[in-house]
Amino acid sequence: MTAIKEGDYILLYSRKGKNWLIKASAKGDFHTHLGRIPFAGVVGNEFGCSVLSDTGQPFYVLKPTVEDFLMKCERQTQIVYPKDMGLMAIKTGIGPGAKVVETGTGSGALTTYVASLVRPGGKVYSYEIREDFHKMATKNLAKAGLSDFVELKLADASKGFEETDSDAVIIDLGDPWNFVDIAWKALKPSGGFAGITPTTNQAELLVDKLKRAGFTRTECFEILFRKMEARIGMTRPSTRMIGHTAYIVTATRLLEKEEPAAEAEPETEADEEEAPEE
Amino acid sequence: MTAIKEGDYILLYSRKGKNWLIKASAKGDFHTHLGRIPFAGVVGNEFGCSVLSDTGQPFYVLKPTVEDFLMKCERQTQIVYPKDMGLMAIKTGIGPGAKVVETGTGSGALTTYVASLVRPGGKVYSYEIREDFHKMATKNLAKAGLSDFVELKLADASKGFEETDSDAVIIDLGDPWNFVDIAWKALKPSGGFAGITPTTNQAELLVDKLKRAGFTRTECFEILFRKMEARIGMTRPSTRMIGHTAYIVTATRLLEKEEPAAEAEPETEADEEEAPEE
Amino acid sequence: MTAIKEGDYILLYSRKGKNWLIKASAKGDFHTHLGRIPFAGVVGNEFGCSVLSDTGQPFYVLKPTVEDFLMKCERQTQIVYPKDMGLMAIKTGIGPGAKVVETGTGSGALTTYVASLVRPGGKVYSYEIREDFHKMATKNLAKAGLSDFVELKLADASKGFEETDSDAVIIDLGDPWNFVDIAWKALKPSGGFAGITPTTNQAELLVDKLKRAGFTRTECFEILFRKMEARIGMTRPSTRMIGHTAYIVTATRLLEKEEPAAEAEPETEADEEEAPEE
Amino acid sequence: MTAIKEGDYILLYSRKGKNWLIKASAKGDFHTHLGRIPFAGVVGNEFGCSVLSDTGQPFYVLKPTVEDFLMKCERQTQIVYPKDMGLMAIKTGIGPGAKVVETGTGSGALTTYVASLVRPGGKVYSYEIREDFHKMATKNLAKAGLSDFVELKLADASKGFEETDSDAVIIDLGDPWNFVDIAWKALKPSGGFAGITPTTNQAELLVDKLKRAGFTRTECFEILFRKMEARIGMTRPSTRMIGHTAYIVTATRLLEKEEPAAEAEPETEADEEEAPEE
Repeated sequence: MTAIKEGDYILLYSRKGKNWLIKASAKGDFHTHLGRIPFAGVVGNEFGCSVLSDTGQPFYVLKPTVEDFLMKCERQTQIVYPKDMGLMAIKTGIGPGAKVVETGTGSGALTTYVASLVRPGGKVYSYEIREDFHKMATKNLAKAGLSDFVELKLADASKGFEETDSDAVIIDLGDPWNFVDIAWKALKPSGGFAGITPTTNQAELLVDKLKRAGFTRTECFEILFRKMEARIGMTRPSTRMIGHTAYIVTATRLLEKEEPAAEAEPETEADEEEAPEE
Repeated sequence: MTAIKEGDYILLYSRKGKNWLIKASAKGDFHTHLGRIPFAGVVGNEFGCSVLSDTGQPFYVLKPTVEDFLMKCERQTQIVYPKDMGLMAIKTGIGPGAKVVETGTGSGALTTYVASLVRPGGKVYSYEIREDFHKMATKNLAKAGLSDFVELKLADASKGFEETDSDAVIIDLGDPWNFVDIAWKALKPSGGFAGITPTTNQAELLVDKLKRAGFTRTECFEILFRKMEARIGMTRPSTRMIGHTAYIVTATRLLEKEEPAAEAEPETEADEEEAPEE
Repeated sequence: MTAIKEGDYILLYSRKGKNWLIKASAKGDFHTHLGRIPFAGVVGNEFGCSVLSDTGQPFYVLKPTVEDFLMKCERQTQIVYPKDMGLMAIKTGIGPGAKVVETGTGSGALTTYVASLVRPGGKVYSYEIREDFHKMATKNLAKAGLSDFVELKLADASKGFEETDSDAVIIDLGDPWNFVDIAWKALKPSGGFAGITPTTNQAELLVDKLKRAGFTRTECFEILFRKMEARIGMTRPSTRMIGHTAYIVTATRLLEKEEPAAEAEPETEADEEEAPEE
Repeated sequence: MTAIKEGDYILLYSRKGKNWLIKASAKGDFHTHLGRIPFAGVVGNEFGCSVLSDTGQPFYVLKPTVEDFLMKCERQTQIVYPKDMGLMAIKTGIGPGAKVVETGTGSGALTTYVASLVRPGGKVYSYEIREDFHKMATKNLAKAGLSDFVELKLADASKGFEETDSDAVIIDLGDPWNFVDIAWKALKPSGGFAGITPTTNQAELLVDKLKRAGFTRTECFEILFRKMEARIGMTRPSTRMIGHTAYIVTATRLLEKEEPAAEAEPETEADEEEAPEE
């Protein structure tokens, strides 16, 4: 069990699902439309405890997950979503100890997730050209307690990454194809590439460039997240859902660039692998 | 760069996407329908290198990812799929250093993924009642080089977990609702619960039980993975896709069990959070 | 070409896609947030013409489709959606000349669509127990100009349909399984049954009942409609979509009820049929 | 009730869902892997009746639907699928009495469906440049009993349609944008246009052309059909599904071509309309 200390971030979670990511304080209260919650009962208590607002509404004090930090980060940009992040990390081999290079940092949501994965031995080097985004990401990473695992660079990645021999490179910019050769140099052979692109046109250009630039195992996919309302005798998918966030493109760097060849679609094979056994 | 050593697992990847996960040997060759590949050119070379089969077919020698190990593990059971694993881990707070309890182990595919995430400071305790599955998972984890981060137990989890104060508990069994109270005891307050269920009926019963058993923030969802065939001027989704693997149910343990109350749907709030900004 | 007459329904469609279904009048104007549109330029003009609001905004005067009438019908109930209607009609053999029995009428949206399909030789017999819905549907069908092809009955279908030898029966009620035997009597042998149910639980009970009640070829499915934003160089699916409306259950009546038998899943066969050839 | 006559097409449907579309004969039998079915018990019997194969397997004799005829048509081309057809017809106003122009005919699957909808007062004019396809479609339409409602033309539609004042035009060719002006001339003002395109690139070019060529209300969408396996206590979506067939593009012809203007996305409005009320 972990007692909540002053300065810890807590997720205040109402029974109706409304929730807030705030810093625990020894005194004062937090105001919501469901009433005022005194901090007095929070600091020193355990994560998972319940508190009542002054209007009698129950709230739970939860330990924020990485998802909370990134979904509630301060932002001025479109962020990458958890549904997309998880599989992207799996396909590019991002895990504990990995050295990962990323551009652009943006609000730092994806950086936050990747930093949480590479702990404690790995590091994320994240490039951002806009100073306001760089500052915002710096704040967001600090809030998530992950600053030690990230080096945020206010720099133009189109001039090249300083890092080499990286395990993975992530390109989250509008023209990812222009960063494929740059990524190649920063990656170790057999390292993983990931690009995030909202449109089919970008995905198409990126996949084409990767196939001609010393990468193999190129995959392009999208992830649909569909919530279920599971209730006894009344189970159904939610009425509304997000129809699209981004296409994810992943690939693996080869040891050497080679003459481009018509690489056939790995679809059949991959489908076989993906097929659940029944 | 990393030279390939004898005994390393390699992913032999043909240009057409067909691939094999095999152990590198100093001599002999590997037979495929695309020709015979001599090991001579593999050991001592770098990951990412190319080799030719005796029929002149080019193959790439890639470093296997965790996804390769789990998708190509020896198995007799339905496995959890990467598309489902990533978000499940994010929502339950599984990451480096985490202590995770799981049942049933099955073929160990999910165990492999979770073990890869909790390195180096964390550990997965995985219960399996069937000896054949337990043995198969033991082999699969060893093959993936992750045995140090897993304790595989040949034991009946329905009698309770030995672990307490865990960060997360995963139930991948046909009657997950019968393991909710058991999971509660094994979890630290604010710890994460995940259940994996193929049917809507199981999801319904599991969500209902969680809401009455000291958990909050219950979510039920499914993930659809849709591959795109991205080619210049001819981009389109793949003709075939996997229509369903499983519903994922996640929840957070409270400090204390409380009188059940009608917990309203957090849908609106969550939808707002998920909504991309445009 | 068809000149617009006084009393015709027109769809006033703004360039931004906002649109209104209104009755054309010889004088006066129609007020929108994009300005006032004088009717003077509408009656006597052709469908497809353009008119300007007093603020200079261009509007198109389109002939309303059946979709417009049903999506813009007056309603107090959840309606069936066009995405679901089309395939349901195909699978149950609803077309010109068909005799179709339906309950409950609700707002009459599905009735409107089915009536438009069975013209001129067919008829829809639609049962509704609530007088307010019955009246609303009567108005909606008149507005769509389809009253001649519908007999709206203010009656309790649970006591049986008066019709027999129908080509298709549609059950859009919360307990469709209770109407399976009633539908059987109203259908001709080899006639089509359709049920519309929002939850998995209802779909499950309905399919089970059909399999035991003299029906075959039972199918249960859902239809996802995903809009694309197609723009040169910026094509992508829309950010938001409807995640769920209803499960559709279709089946075919047999000549005679028979002893229930374990009817195996027709999945393999149907999948083969559905599979696009590439 | 309708007695089966010699020469009628019947759908022989096995309990396991395997089925055959065949012509009823007065004598002889039909051979399947589930045994031999004698025609003797079929002609003169009613649709919906059961027959036994010589090995004791039960079969149902069903009246084929339009879906059966088109899914089981002889074909050498990719066909349009029922899931896509229904909504396309709704959005373009195709129904009884409509005059519809189509190219290319291909195997005539879509032609079959449209012909079944426009009966008895309407007609489909379908252009095909390849003689083999034209012949195959002629046979398929005859088989479905719909020849009277179709005029199949062995002609090059790129030189223009002979028809004018049509209610709807359907373009199912690889370069639909080249047929937009041709379709404009064949359509009556406020008439409906539909294009069917497998790739995002084609959809993009088609939508762009339509917006500049005297059309409004342009929509681009895809339809996903997801089968449910509904069984008591074991309900779940099917493991496999078709991931993609085609994008459907619909639009409405204006009375006059006008100077192109930036037509804003109708997304918000349309989304509101589509939104189920809860």
